[in-house]
Amino acid sequence: MPDGTGAALGPPVATPIVGRLALVGLGLVGSSIARAAKLRRLAGTLVAIDRDPEVVARVRDLGIADEATTDMLAGIRGADLVILCIPVGAFGAVAQTIAGALKPGAIVSDTGSVKGSVVTQVAPHLPDGVHLVPAHPVAGTEYSGPDAGFATLFRERWCILTPPEGTDPAAVETVSALWTAMGANVEIMTPEHHDLVLAITSHVPHLIAYNIVGTAADLETVTQGEVIKFSAGGFRDFTRIAASDPTMWRDIFLHNKPAVLEMLGRLNEDIAILARAIRWGDGDALFDLFTRTRAIRRGIISQGQETAEPDFGRRREDPAA
Amino acid sequence: MPDGTGAALGPPVATPIVGRLALVGLGLVGSSIARAAKLRRLAGTLVAIDRDPEVVARVRDLGIADEATTDMLAGIRGADLVILCIPVGAFGAVAQTIAGALKPGAIVSDTGSVKGSVVTQVAPHLPDGVHLVPAHPVAGTEYSGPDAGFATLFRERWCILTPPEGTDPAAVETVSALWTAMGANVEIMTPEHHDLVLAITSHVPHLIAYNIVGTAADLETVTQGEVIKFSAGGFRDFTRIAASDPTMWRDIFLHNKPAVLEMLGRLNEDIAILARAIRWGDGDALFDLFTRTRAIRRGIISQGQETAEPDFGRRREDPAA
Repeated sequence: MPDGTGAALGPPVATPIVGRLALVGLGLVGSSIARAAKLRRLAGTLVAIDRDPEVVARVRDLGIADEATTDMLAGIRGADLVILCIPVGAFGAVAQTIAGALKPGAIVSDTGSVKGSVVTQVAPHLPDGVHLVPAHPVAGTEYSGPDAGFATLFRERWCILTPPEGTDPAAVETVSALWTAMGANVEIMTPEHHDLVLAITSHVPHLIAYNIVGTAADLETVTQGEVIKFSAGGFRDFTRIAASDPTMWRDIFLHNKPAVLEMLGRLNEDIAILARAIRWGDGDALFDLFTRTRAIRRGIISQGQETAEPDFGRRREDPAA
Repeated sequence: MPDGTGAALGPPVATPIVGRLALVGLGLVGSSIARAAKLRRLAGTLVAIDRDPEVVARVRDLGIADEATTDMLAGIRGADLVILCIPVGAFGAVAQTIAGALKPGAIVSDTGSVKGSVVTQVAPHLPDGVHLVPAHPVAGTEYSGPDAGFATLFRERWCILTPPEGTDPAAVETVSALWTAMGANVEIMTPEHHDLVLAITSHVPHLIAYNIVGTAADLETVTQGEVIKFSAGGFRDFTRIAASDPTMWRDIFLHNKPAVLEMLGRLNEDIAILARAIRWGDGDALFDLFTRTRAIRRGIISQGQETAEPDFGRRREDPAA
């Protein structure tokens, strides 16, 4: 666990932000919300709902929720805020299932990595008087499941809200306050813009990583053993995000098609130009690009989104360090 | 410094492996060799040579060499082993400069990331009786310069030697022993195979990383500020290797053209297939690939080339951790 105490989040809040908080899906993200909410007492009652009985049993053992159940309807009944922490492909079916049991005035939110598709999948099922406030915390690790979560996962990360036009401001404020209390910075934008921004900062990087790892595994001229042995030359960096949850990522690509294909097209144009520079020995073009890209990393580090330590600080692994 | 003491390398050796060791180029790699060699007393005398007077002054301040000079000929005179730790593009000129001053029986080695081109650039200049043993330690960080080095950089990493056919086995053994004493595992292969293996495990990953960071910086639909803010979704992983030394990497691509272009071609084929799967909604194809790639990372972790900690262990940065 990166931070077993979660002390960095601060002490419990004076008054819970939500009365009954129902989390649907207790994977990395859902269980991290549960941990952070429990630590800071952000909910009067915290209900964990997962269709997998093993996950529910594990959540009980971990003691990170007040109630834990596989019964979705029983779990969400009476909830003031329901957060769907499930793969993007499952939103429509779950929204349909829970719609009739939602209490008037309830807020439905989520943590999906695609927002346009979430709005179109969920909104049509919701009864009048229920508020939809889609959210996306831009945070995660390559691990999955309830044991992978930790309370500080969202600290100093951004959480993007994409409420449809005309959404009750009080509902947006509740969701925003919850994320802020979990250490996140909140930003509001349209679902369309979100999907474009995340295509380049998250979806296409994952696709490229999956792709290069797959290509390397399939070579006939270089063995898989060699790829593994000599991976410290840069390749291993890509394997981390290529080890992310396959279901989650399949759904992201299927539900953010236009933006992913658009960004991939731009990437391909640029790589063609780079390949040409290499083929024709245009060292100046290469040098210029390689210099520009250093500045971007400096920006990411200075804005607290990345460690400045060499090699991500991996070397602290050294027994002698 | 990831490991200020270097204690993990072990105590000084009983007898130095090399009499007079001359390092040409005191950047990240050269200065790491100096530190490791000094700690374990691997050389009778350690000479640091750099054309930049500021680097030489810094090496003196750091106290990581017995002698430090900008005078290449004075520095290599009498050396038993000369290691060129300079960008691949500079090998020919430096080999020509030093050739006449090399002592009979001396060994010339290097740390270049391309090996075929190093052999063709250096070998023609060397007098008879001087041994060429090219080497490539597959290790590094995104930082450059004499202050970026550390004694354990090569520990548990691989160092690949590519001696031309007929090289004196004793010379190969000396270079091998030196790398082993610095904590590396040594593997021997042909320069051609090295360049193919490193194209996929190092060169193309760097090219892809530089490319995606460049593409993101140039978008008109997403601001650079947004790219930086939301980089924790995966993008920031790429910025690390895209912050590597521009001169070093320009030279690598210019000197490993055929292998880099070949591997890039394969990558492009595979990305086209992935794009088609996304466009046509072939979720099974995506899921299959995303599952296969997880196994590769497990192999890298189990062979000690990567940390198993979530997010490369970045979260240990947390003040509360």
